[in-house]
Amino acid sequence: MLGSGFIARFYADSIQGARTQDKIVSVYSRREESARKFAQDYGVSHFTTAMEEAVNYTDAEVVCIALPNNLHEAAVMACVKAKKAVIITKPLGRNAEEALRMMKAVEEAGIFNGYLEDLCYTPKFLKALESVQGGALGRILWAKSRETHPGPHSEWFWDLEQAGGGAILDLGCHCVEIARGYIGKDIKPVEVMCWADTQVKPIPAEDHAIGLVKYENGAIGQFEVSWTFRGGLDLRDEVMGTEGTIWINNFLRTGFEMFTSGKGADYVAEKAESNSGWLFPVGDELNDLGYNHMFADMFNSIEQGKTPRETFYDGYVVNAVLDAAYRSAKSKLWEPVKLPVWRGQEGVKKETAFTDYDDQYYLVKEEITHYGATKLILKDKQSGKIVEKVKEA
Amino acid sequence: MLGSGFIARFYADSIQGARTQDKIVSVYSRREESARKFAQDYGVSHFTTAMEEAVNYTDAEVVCIALPNNLHEAAVMACVKAKKAVIITKPLGRNAEEALRMMKAVEEAGIFNGYLEDLCYTPKFLKALESVQGGALGRILWAKSRETHPGPHSEWFWDLEQAGGGAILDLGCHCVEIARGYIGKDIKPVEVMCWADTQVKPIPAEDHAIGLVKYENGAIGQFEVSWTFRGGLDLRDEVMGTEGTIWINNFLRTGFEMFTSGKGADYVAEKAESNSGWLFPVGDELNDLGYNHMFADMFNSIEQGKTPRETFYDGYVVNAVLDAAYRSAKSKLWEPVKLPVWRGQEGVKKETAFTDYDDQYYLVKEEITHYGATKLILKDKQSGKIVEKVKEA
Amino acid sequence: MLGSGFIARFYADSIQGARTQDKIVSVYSRREESARKFAQDYGVSHFTTAMEEAVNYTDAEVVCIALPNNLHEAAVMACVKAKKAVIITKPLGRNAEEALRMMKAVEEAGIFNGYLEDLCYTPKFLKALESVQGGALGRILWAKSRETHPGPHSEWFWDLEQAGGGAILDLGCHCVEIARGYIGKDIKPVEVMCWADTQVKPIPAEDHAIGLVKYENGAIGQFEVSWTFRGGLDLRDEVMGTEGTIWINNFLRTGFEMFTSGKGADYVAEKAESNSGWLFPVGDELNDLGYNHMFADMFNSIEQGKTPRETFYDGYVVNAVLDAAYRSAKSKLWEPVKLPVWRGQEGVKKETAFTDYDDQYYLVKEEITHYGATKLILKDKQSGKIVEKVKEA
Amino acid sequence: MLGSGFIARFYADSIQGARTQDKIVSVYSRREESARKFAQDYGVSHFTTAMEEAVNYTDAEVVCIALPNNLHEAAVMACVKAKKAVIITKPLGRNAEEALRMMKAVEEAGIFNGYLEDLCYTPKFLKALESVQGGALGRILWAKSRETHPGPHSEWFWDLEQAGGGAILDLGCHCVEIARGYIGKDIKPVEVMCWADTQVKPIPAEDHAIGLVKYENGAIGQFEVSWTFRGGLDLRDEVMGTEGTIWINNFLRTGFEMFTSGKGADYVAEKAESNSGWLFPVGDELNDLGYNHMFADMFNSIEQGKTPRETFYDGYVVNAVLDAAYRSAKSKLWEPVKLPVWRGQEGVKKETAFTDYDDQYYLVKEEITHYGATKLILKDKQSGKIVEKVKEA
Repeated sequence: MLGSGFIARFYADSIQGARTQDKIVSVYSRREESARKFAQDYGVSHFTTAMEEAVNYTDAEVVCIALPNNLHEAAVMACVKAKKAVIITKPLGRNAEEALRMMKAVEEAGIFNGYLEDLCYTPKFLKALESVQGGALGRILWAKSRETHPGPHSEWFWDLEQAGGGAILDLGCHCVEIARGYIGKDIKPVEVMCWADTQVKPIPAEDHAIGLVKYENGAIGQFEVSWTFRGGLDLRDEVMGTEGTIWINNFLRTGFEMFTSGKGADYVAEKAESNSGWLFPVGDELNDLGYNHMFADMFNSIEQGKTPRETFYDGYVVNAVLDAAYRSAKSKLWEPVKLPVWRGQEGVKKETAFTDYDDQYYLVKEEITHYGATKLILKDKQSGKIVEKVKEA
Repeated sequence: MLGSGFIARFYADSIQGARTQDKIVSVYSRREESARKFAQDYGVSHFTTAMEEAVNYTDAEVVCIALPNNLHEAAVMACVKAKKAVIITKPLGRNAEEALRMMKAVEEAGIFNGYLEDLCYTPKFLKALESVQGGALGRILWAKSRETHPGPHSEWFWDLEQAGGGAILDLGCHCVEIARGYIGKDIKPVEVMCWADTQVKPIPAEDHAIGLVKYENGAIGQFEVSWTFRGGLDLRDEVMGTEGTIWINNFLRTGFEMFTSGKGADYVAEKAESNSGWLFPVGDELNDLGYNHMFADMFNSIEQGKTPRETFYDGYVVNAVLDAAYRSAKSKLWEPVKLPVWRGQEGVKKETAFTDYDDQYYLVKEEITHYGATKLILKDKQSGKIVEKVKEA
Repeated sequence: MLGSGFIARFYADSIQGARTQDKIVSVYSRREESARKFAQDYGVSHFTTAMEEAVNYTDAEVVCIALPNNLHEAAVMACVKAKKAVIITKPLGRNAEEALRMMKAVEEAGIFNGYLEDLCYTPKFLKALESVQGGALGRILWAKSRETHPGPHSEWFWDLEQAGGGAILDLGCHCVEIARGYIGKDIKPVEVMCWADTQVKPIPAEDHAIGLVKYENGAIGQFEVSWTFRGGLDLRDEVMGTEGTIWINNFLRTGFEMFTSGKGADYVAEKAESNSGWLFPVGDELNDLGYNHMFADMFNSIEQGKTPRETFYDGYVVNAVLDAAYRSAKSKLWEPVKLPVWRGQEGVKKETAFTDYDDQYYLVKEEITHYGATKLILKDKQSGKIVEKVKEA
Repeated sequence: MLGSGFIARFYADSIQGARTQDKIVSVYSRREESARKFAQDYGVSHFTTAMEEAVNYTDAEVVCIALPNNLHEAAVMACVKAKKAVIITKPLGRNAEEALRMMKAVEEAGIFNGYLEDLCYTPKFLKALESVQGGALGRILWAKSRETHPGPHSEWFWDLEQAGGGAILDLGCHCVEIARGYIGKDIKPVEVMCWADTQVKPIPAEDHAIGLVKYENGAIGQFEVSWTFRGGLDLRDEVMGTEGTIWINNFLRTGFEMFTSGKGADYVAEKAESNSGWLFPVGDELNDLGYNHMFADMFNSIEQGKTPRETFYDGYVVNAVLDAAYRSAKSKLWEPVKLPVWRGQEGVKKETAFTDYDDQYYLVKEEITHYGATKLILKDKQSGKIVEKVKEA
């Protein structure tokens, strides 16, 4: 484990979760005090403030990078040098250039590489994806992911040099990959329009942004990210297809609702902005946020010699989309997504899915009226004229 | 009443609702058959296929225009000529040019003019607006309105000449005015970025669009509109401020949930895409969609010589925003909102709302840790450096 | 209007609501100060502390009784004497004996009598009832109504002599009539089992109770009432039938959700236990709680010479059920509902609705397995033996 | 593993879940075909139709009983004979007599015994329980658990001899233990009132029941169970205390909502009554229904020599409560819970928690009025008189 902060602890809780086979054997942190505390809390036998020492630790078969963004590349390169399997927290790089270098390095070294995109492993996402891929929603037209909260926990996020960006990089990386999953990972993201602003926080980075990602097949991915949201951690996804829709709420409304006057002794609610009134706890954060399924996929893939669901390549594509978002926020233009490496389909056209009603007409809409009759809106294929027909029930 | 179609019937249900004082005395429709049926159903003593006849009908004190978009201007001008109070369905015009002409005409004629923007009269909107205006959410940062469904009922909507546009004009007009209400009607909308596409329907107009409206004070309005949504009528609004958030669901999730196997004889569910499985009826559509509060405001305003909440001026501002959206969808640029007439504030700056922690620091974030201590993220006013402080509980 | 307290004001808001034809012309209260204030607030020209004076007031065509329970009978008798139409708040009497006397008196006098059971007029209830009566849920098996909150507003509720009971009488009267509506008003309630206790409040009456009401056709009505609930006003109904279910939430979850830090100046949330954190306002309380539809039914019925949905007879049946509940809470036995007057069906048997699968078997259950096959659980009509059959898809 | 049916497969999925240390080494089923299929599907090396052979299988350290109710006792006795640790599915026995014999046998043999009550291990329950035990709800007044669905999967449930009961035994065992958890496992359940009926299914056992369980401290547990519910698997719990409330929805509303027209090829929704319209899938059934946390507790307890959360003793207490419920359903009386063995507190009195306002008054209720003032309802300690006081804001 490289890192001993907030996310490292989430990872450790999951990796060393109930009844797992997997154990953390060494931990690196820049601060000895943090490394020691982490080692104690998780029963890790070895800790160090020398990154290479942790990476090269003999018993360590896999290196898990849970460090601030500016340390990702150095840590990856250490793994490359040591020829150790590497899994890394999101975002892969601070930009696509860093990400591409890391991707090329691990691939040339032939080492296992996994991208720890936990929100693409939530049980709800996995099940929704299965439905989408099974055709339950028809052709996907739009996929939105929203992640907003009152701001990150650790101080380095607020420092532009270390973080490499603000809410777009921190939260948008999740949203982009979620939408990409629904629309299809082999469909090319072609251009991005993004609004971003620093509305509230005294920082140089953006604390609120909204972006649209256009895919080659005409589908639209949307992200809404903010560090200024009040009310807790808002994690919602929506997908729209020609045959249906999916709405997912991962955190604030999951069927667990509590009212407390706050008079109960010693009670502190986790992750909420208050500890009285109506609260919405999450049952099993580690599982519901995808950590368990993510590490299972990673470790199973390593053992079985498979490619995991999320790799450095995916991290690189996400970085490329976010780079375009940053450029767009400045230029106020739709900016092209620059993908020097692209492994999906090329030249996918927008489907022209006009539904035939009969030889003469396209079907525009069919609905049941208040009177039980079926009303049809049709379009003449030749003249383009719209007509209305009613079929009595 | 000018018009006897879908919306005219909604209006009539509301105007002649239980125990009201207000009665419809004449109805005009282009088709005699429709006019006669409407007159019968609502007990209207006079019907006609001559618009001027209805407008000039002696007993009619107010003219209610519920006609396709391309007939709005002619109908308004007839009212101007007759010096009759006029209330008109949304959108005011097919574009800002038409809207401005209508606005000028009614104002010069000195007649009462009301804009029938029902979704700015829903009980939830009115109560939410009161909270927003009372400061419960602090400074408003973002307001989104979403209206999507499987497509409009009447055939003229699908005809670009009559309708003047697609989902943006039909649904976006609601969304723009809702967001404008939350952000402040005196705050100028300055520019618009819009994506629009015809993804599914065999029509020249857009069937899906997403737009961002930037206001002079830095706040963002967002609209999401579609005629291709599957699942019913999705009407949701969200507002985010520095001190809170509001989520409104006007239709699909209002605390009324029904499962039916569909075996019940003769049962047809209204307004849903299916009549079995889980259904989500709305208790009182007329009231919940704002019609009752809207007509009460209009008629009370007329009697009391007041300006109603929504006037032709508001309709014109909305049209101007939508015009910018259409230009943006084509140009792919942020397009300025052109407002030859503007009656709100000018030159409002973005608030720089940095919160002081003490003389040395700004407060970036305060949170309660798992251990009950208070953690502060602070920014040094001089150096810009981010630091973390923990206050033990 | 007889009464000027909390409920009288709710009634007045509704009766004199936007654009109505109906006006309050006189108000009686025991305290002159209250009567005067009410008269002022609602523009009522006449007020008095002499009940008969208000009842006999010439311009008053209908007397609306909104007084504490112990004054109901006297007020009704005054209306009987004056031969004035009378509508009365719930519960009709403090017990069935009082209720029956009132019912007989108004019926013998031949005056219009309406029972102001607002929760049987909520838009959701009315629409749900229509679905139930249309067969969407099949045969009704169980109907539950829950009304709980932190206790009533006015002091007389807490006084057993004036109120006649505690939470059962105050809230159970709603719940019993709601369940009766779904099950069928012509189906006889035959016996009641009730648990009641004073768990929290320093009062002689019950502050929490749960009751089961058995109907002649085997259906079960259930009520859950409490004055000790924390979290606001919890108003939920559920109905279960052989073909479906309905869940209604009238207050705490209606698609309107707000988070506020509470820093907003001067903001006070109505009807909630707190004014910060997550709040759940109701859009239009008067309409959503049924007041508007209730008064429309009453006044329309008077004008059209019809019987309204809820009459003194209904109030009397409810009182009889609640009397049985009180007896049961004491005796710990299922207590018979004593109905000296009963106008519904007699001798309705439980339906034995075994579903035939074929000549040999009854169908117990049919389900689709994970593999897409249809699995049947059948029961041999002769031997009673249960067998399992799988039909491949 | 003893058993290879529906529940055995759920258990196996969990025990052999992703990355676990735990493996199934032998499986017994009455039918060789089932045993073989199970062994194949889960990679179990040994299968048999001789129960003792599986129990005595050398590599098996723990015996997991997942058999029909009528086989529980024989299987437990085999484990006792073999001195093997035993964990058993719910309910422990078909009645308390069987349960008590099993409990005594395992305790005398000194073997580890665990009761597989999965719904007391759902992440939501565990977190809610922590809040309750931390005092967030104050003193618990009422705890309800509802489990209803359209009927069990396997044919033996429908056979009274094998199952030992209907919906009460099958589903009520969960509900009773959940409520007992919230109220306190050391608080004695003293009596039960239960209504039960066979409303729909052609079976001798009950298909619908509602019960109230009175605890020695005055708290009330409530269960609502049915095999006739339409709409899916309804699993909801509610708890009410003097300081708050908790609402849990474990299945039908968990923040995952899908609409599908059903046109998607080959799509079948699991666990729902339909595969089109609005569907409500569950993200991770195994985890959300408690299986993972349950087996982790069991296996960790065995390794650490601890008592698990749920033991045979708990299973026996539940059976004793359900026996009282069955007696009550017949006798129509509150029936005492017979507990020849009781290990909790004795003689716990109802708390008389009157809140002092000052020396003269008890506080009945405090609320904030529309005008911002604080209104108090007080009760004179001497006279018992109720008074109202208003404190201006």
